[in-house]
Amino acid sequence: MQALRGLCAFPITPADAEGRIVEADLRRILSRIVRAQVDSIGLLGSTGNYAYLPLDERRRALEIALDAVGGRMPVIVGVGALRTGDAEALARHAREAGAQGLLLAPMTYQPLTADEIVTHFARVAEAGGLPLVIYNNPTTTRVTMDVALLARLAALPHVAGVKMPLPAADAFEAEIATLRDALPAGFVIGYSGDWGCSRALMARADTWFSVAAGLWPDTTLTLSCAASAGDAASTRQAEERFQPLWDLFRRHGSLRVIHTAARLMDLTETDPQPPVLPLPDSELPALRAAIRAMER
Amino acid sequence: MQALRGLCAFPITPADAEGRIVEADLRRILSRIVRAQVDSIGLLGSTGNYAYLPLDERRRALEIALDAVGGRMPVIVGVGALRTGDAEALARHAREAGAQGLLLAPMTYQPLTADEIVTHFARVAEAGGLPLVIYNNPTTTRVTMDVALLARLAALPHVAGVKMPLPAADAFEAEIATLRDALPAGFVIGYSGDWGCSRALMARADTWFSVAAGLWPDTTLTLSCAASAGDAASTRQAEERFQPLWDLFRRHGSLRVIHTAARLMDLTETDPQPPVLPLPDSELPALRAAIRAMER
Repeated sequence: MQALRGLCAFPITPADAEGRIVEADLRRILSRIVRAQVDSIGLLGSTGNYAYLPLDERRRALEIALDAVGGRMPVIVGVGALRTGDAEALARHAREAGAQGLLLAPMTYQPLTADEIVTHFARVAEAGGLPLVIYNNPTTTRVTMDVALLARLAALPHVAGVKMPLPAADAFEAEIATLRDALPAGFVIGYSGDWGCSRALMARADTWFSVAAGLWPDTTLTLSCAASAGDAASTRQAEERFQPLWDLFRRHGSLRVIHTAARLMDLTETDPQPPVLPLPDSELPALRAAIRAMER
Repeated sequence: MQALRGLCAFPITPADAEGRIVEADLRRILSRIVRAQVDSIGLLGSTGNYAYLPLDERRRALEIALDAVGGRMPVIVGVGALRTGDAEALARHAREAGAQGLLLAPMTYQPLTADEIVTHFARVAEAGGLPLVIYNNPTTTRVTMDVALLARLAALPHVAGVKMPLPAADAFEAEIATLRDALPAGFVIGYSGDWGCSRALMARADTWFSVAAGLWPDTTLTLSCAASAGDAASTRQAEERFQPLWDLFRRHGSLRVIHTAARLMDLTETDPQPPVLPLPDSELPALRAAIRAMER
C-alpha cells in the first residue's frame, strides 16, 4: 500500500500531567512535519506515548491531528491496548474519524500465545477495516514475532505491513529476503530503530518508521531519500549529524530523549507521561549538543 | 504486618465480554474463601485479571468484595496500572472503600529505569496510605527486581512486603536469607508460583500468594499449614493431589487454567478477558482430571 511507504514521522503527543492533550503543541509539531512533506505520519506510536494516555485523549489527539494535517499526508494511528475490546473501539473510531491506517502492537501483561495474538489482531483489524501495520516491537511488547507468526498475521484481512525492529548483526538483506518470501506480495516491510534505518532502506525496506522525523522532518527526509536511492556516500554524509542523537537514543530510549528535546526547543512545556520520566538533567548538555548537530 | 502473612487466596474476577463484573459469581467464589478461613484475600491480582479490566469495574469489584467479605478477613487489592495517575487513583479509592492493603506491580510498556519504578511506587504508596506489597512478577511485568531495587522500594513509606517469583533451582533458603538481610525488620517476604510455595513456606517465607487457594481454599490451606509447620511428610502427602493442577499451571499459565476450572465447576459462565483465551478444548480432559484430584 503506497500510503505506508517511505518516511513515516512519529511525533510526540504533548499532554499535561493528567494526560490531557495540549492541542497547540501538537499542532505546532505536526505543522513542521506537514511542511517537510514526509510520506506519512505515525500518530500515537510508542514515541507518541499511546500506551500511557487515557483512551478518550487518544481519540482527541487523532481528531486534532487529522484536522491539522487536513489530508495533506496519510495519518496512521496506534490503536494498541491491553484489552482487545479497547483496541477494537479505538480502531472503529480511527476509521470514523478519517485515519488512513492503523498500527497495532500486541501489548502484553499475561504472556500471550500465538493463537491469542492472532485472534486479537483479527478482531481489531476487522473492527477498523483500514490498512493495518503490525507493530513488531519486542522492547515494549516483549512479544518476539517469528516469521511463522508474522505470516499468520499477514494473512488476515486488512493487515498490510509490518514495522520491524532492527535485526541482529545488521542482517537486513537476509531478513528482508526471508520476509518477502514468507509474506504476501506487496506487503509493506518497514523498520524502526532510527540508528539502523538507513541500512534498512539501502537493503530495500519499504518504510522507515522514524522518531527523529517527528522533530526534524527535513533533515531526516534528506537522509531517508539518500538511503532509499542507494547512495552510500550521501547517506554517510547525511547521517553524520545524527550520531550524537542516536547515541542518546540507544542509552535512554528515544521517547525520553525526543520529548525532552522538544521541550528544549520550546515546542512544548510538557513531559512524558509518568511513570516515564524526562531525560535526567545530567544528560541535558549532551542533548543540547545533539540538537545543535541536527540543526547545523 | 500480620494481615499479610499466611495463605493469601487470589480469586478470579468473573466479568462478561465487555469487562463488567458478574457480581453473583464473584460473591460465590469469595464465599468459599471466607468459609475456609484462609489468612487474606488478594483481589485483582494477575489471576483476577486486573490488567485487563476497565478501571471503573476494578473499583466495583473491590466494593463488591469488601461487602461480601464483611471484615471477616483482610482484603488486599491490586492497583497496578500503566499510568502512574491511574494507579494513584485506584490506591486512593482502595483506602476510601476500606481495603486493608495494596498490591502494586510495575506494569510496563516502555522499559522503565530504576528511578522511574521507585518514583512510581512512592507516588502510589503515598496516594494509598495503606500497607503495600511489591508485586514482583517478571513474567507479567518484565521487570527484574534485584535486591538493590527491592531495598530502595522497601524503604518507601507504607511499603510493607514483597510477593516474590520462585527462585532458580529452588534456592529458597539462600534467597530469603539475602532478602531478610537487605530489607527492613518485619518486612513480609512471600512467594507466588503455587507449585513451589510449599518449599518457600518450609524455608520460612511469610506468605503464600496462591492461585489455587482462590478456587480450593480448604485443600490449599491444609497444604499451607503443613508446610508452614515444617512437617515434610504431611506436606508431601497434602501436595500429591495438586500435581496435575501444577502441571497445567506450568504449561498454560495459571490464569487460563483456573478460570476455565471455575467454569467447569459451574462457579461462573465467564471466560478470561480477551486477548487472553480460555484453556484450549484439547486440555479439558486433563483439567477435569486435575479438578477430580483436587476434590478427591
